[in-house]
Amino acid sequence: MIKVYGDILSGNCYKIKLLLALLEQPHQWLHINILNSETHTPEFLHKNPNGKIPLIELDDGNVLFESNAIINYLAEGTAFLPQDALAKAKVLQWQFFEQYSHEPYIATARYIAKYLKMPESRTAEFYGKQAGGHKALSVMNQHLSQQDYFVENNYTIADISLYAYTHVADEGGFDLTPYTHILSWMNRIEAHPRHVTMQQFL
Amino acid sequence: MIKVYGDILSGNCYKIKLLLALLEQPHQWLHINILNSETHTPEFLHKNPNGKIPLIELDDGNVLFESNAIINYLAEGTAFLPQDALAKAKVLQWQFFEQYSHEPYIATARYIAKYLKMPESRTAEFYGKQAGGHKALSVMNQHLSQQDYFVENNYTIADISLYAYTHVADEGGFDLTPYTHILSWMNRIEAHPRHVTMQQFL
Repeated sequence: MIKVYGDILSGNCYKIKLLLALLEQPHQWLHINILNSETHTPEFLHKNPNGKIPLIELDDGNVLFESNAIINYLAEGTAFLPQDALAKAKVLQWQFFEQYSHEPYIATARYIAKYLKMPESRTAEFYGKQAGGHKALSVMNQHLSQQDYFVENNYTIADISLYAYTHVADEGGFDLTPYTHILSWMNRIEAHPRHVTMQQFL
Repeated sequence: MIKVYGDILSGNCYKIKLLLALLEQPHQWLHINILNSETHTPEFLHKNPNGKIPLIELDDGNVLFESNAIINYLAEGTAFLPQDALAKAKVLQWQFFEQYSHEPYIATARYIAKYLKMPESRTAEFYGKQAGGHKALSVMNQHLSQQDYFVENNYTIADISLYAYTHVADEGGFDLTPYTHILSWMNRIEAHPRHVTMQQFL
């Protein structure tokens, strides 16, 4: 059975949990506390030299890190990853957009506010993240004004990647009210019969 | 024929040029000047709402952005992308590592120094990027102490992604001398008979 090392409140880790729930795939979840530096023990660094979660470990001992690489691996051959080469590349396009233009703003602002409880030493950084986060949300909202999901109008792992931190963006200070197409898209995702929330695993 | 919109001195754009050269694939290169805001014209934003290069346009008008998504698409079915599902996911793992833990430090420091000519207003940011860049280089160097290339000991697009900004890291203030395994790996990449440099297209 696949082992997942993660923290369910981390959007990057929640991506794995959500996909595994949609696929009804049994797995073992091992909680890792990043604030206790559990990603920097020699044992963990042996699995991921970059010291980050999530990480999965297969039955044969092989490990894989980086949330979006993991969900590409798990989604292969399922309805959540198209087979067509261009559609597959568009899934990756939105996942790289997420890691470069979305996560460093929205997830980092949320981390400072929610995990670190907004220390004064990082308030300027928190506010500095707002413009970049709103830019990413605008790009998403515009795209979703034209289609129901990010790629080929089907629910794919591109949606999972972008949903993970978008649906908790308010915890990073982002008001989603003006982004009406994002709100409708989140409703569509949450209406899936096998949808799971972060909170139900706490 | 594929159209590539890019700036050859941008590592992200150079990834495409290097792969197309290795594959001997004809293409049309359209130079985009980011300092002249050519990525923010209405015409360009219509192709990529995120206003970034590189971008490719196919004969049928389909466009694809995000450098690593593009090279996954172009490498599909070639020797530069393994077919095995786990090996393929490991290629992605290193590409997401590159975009999240490498590029924002090394490429941004280089951009401040080389493109912007180190304005006083961004000197602190330049120096702030050094620790993160060295962390990424250490992770790479350690991995390359165990194998010749990043995935399965073959030259793949994971190597192209990481080579792009690593081989010009000195322009961002990073001395590569201590990273002996990275230096040997760069030599192996540059020894490929179809290797091309950024400079030969200037």
